[in-house]
Amino acid sequence: MAGAADDVKLLGMWASPYVLRVRLALSIKGIRYEYAEEDLRHKSELLLRSNPVHNKVPVLIHGGKPVCESLVILQYIDEAFGGAGPALLPADPHERAVARFWAAFIEDTLVKAMNQASWSKTEGEKVEGNKQATAALRTLEGALRDVSMGKPFFGGDSAGYVDIVLGGLLAGVRAMEAMLGVKAFDPETMPLLAAWADNFGALDAVAAVMPDVGRLVELFVMMHAQIATQAATTN
Amino acid sequence: MAGAADDVKLLGMWASPYVLRVRLALSIKGIRYEYAEEDLRHKSELLLRSNPVHNKVPVLIHGGKPVCESLVILQYIDEAFGGAGPALLPADPHERAVARFWAAFIEDTLVKAMNQASWSKTEGEKVEGNKQATAALRTLEGALRDVSMGKPFFGGDSAGYVDIVLGGLLAGVRAMEAMLGVKAFDPETMPLLAAWADNFGALDAVAAVMPDVGRLVELFVMMHAQIATQAATTN
Repeated sequence: MAGAADDVKLLGMWASPYVLRVRLALSIKGIRYEYAEEDLRHKSELLLRSNPVHNKVPVLIHGGKPVCESLVILQYIDEAFGGAGPALLPADPHERAVARFWAAFIEDTLVKAMNQASWSKTEGEKVEGNKQATAALRTLEGALRDVSMGKPFFGGDSAGYVDIVLGGLLAGVRAMEAMLGVKAFDPETMPLLAAWADNFGALDAVAAVMPDVGRLVELFVMMHAQIATQAATTN
Repeated sequence: MAGAADDVKLLGMWASPYVLRVRLALSIKGIRYEYAEEDLRHKSELLLRSNPVHNKVPVLIHGGKPVCESLVILQYIDEAFGGAGPALLPADPHERAVARFWAAFIEDTLVKAMNQASWSKTEGEKVEGNKQATAALRTLEGALRDVSMGKPFFGGDSAGYVDIVLGGLLAGVRAMEAMLGVKAFDPETMPLLAAWADNFGALDAVAAVMPDVGRLVELFVMMHAQIATQAATTN
């Protein structure tokens, strides 16, 4: 049963940073949509049919047509709903390229390092991941200084594409900070990113869709226990 | 010394599939540019200054401003030189999202598998990479059938974004085929991709920038010998 031409539906999972990016974009643009929570152990027929290549959330279904992969979805939202809310990407081709460069950096370098820091089985791998994540954040601190030129967001006065790509990670970062008693965005060494995280998190459109940090901590504690059990039984 | 506002310069390396993508796009769009070959063991000051985050080719410098990362550069070329030659991405937002999805698939799934198949140190890893590369190509065969709807290219009647992203790999694939005596695009199991490779390679704009396959074979033979030496000395 296909929806109406303008129907927007999001297949998601509450703790996914990739799904959060899409929710942030839809919220910032003020686009109404139906949200369907997926049980990733028992994926819906609609998810399997809509993303047959990866079988993964998020999937945005607009007028019956699916769009997959968070960065692809964000650009789709910007292009298909141009009239709604603020533009996510700048208009100038070079500024758009700079935004796409930093989105790719966050995806390929920062996320990879954060995952290694958080979910590796050995302490050595975690320490190395942590080192790389800190180096990536320092690079982003410099990028924020160069791109924003004194304005609060990568997008300037309002949150845009890069803010959303990075902002999707923010709930997980806050949960890790709470668990480990550390500050990922250290105000001493990364003052701009620390202020960015506070400013971004304080936006109404952002606060409205951020998952509960306490619930994320519970999930992460459970996942770490599973990894520890696996490591103990396979060594 | 900054160039004129419309000056286009490409920092590249002749054997790089990522650089080839950019050369293909510039050639298909008919954009004139200066090409500078980098010695990757002794990178130029201009490269280090233009891509301080990754220090990698390709870098496109347009009017003195650098753009890095091949997929970002391709989209930049499409947006900054909209008037020149055919559009690389379609106009429709959903078709653009589909093209970006397949570009990401080629980048994240196919290239990763091909690199594992070609450059792993153990035979087991190579076999597994080869299996994954074949599976990825079969997925692309289905994509070409669905996206092109009987037309020769992912872009329809003319080569576009996905054709260029995949086409950048074509010279390396041809060299590997020559070395190993195999067919990567098997006409029996992947008839559409096999025809695509022939059609794409036969375009004047493509033939004009394709590196010499014999020279690539020489380079690959040397690289494999280095890997074998490393494996023998570190085991």
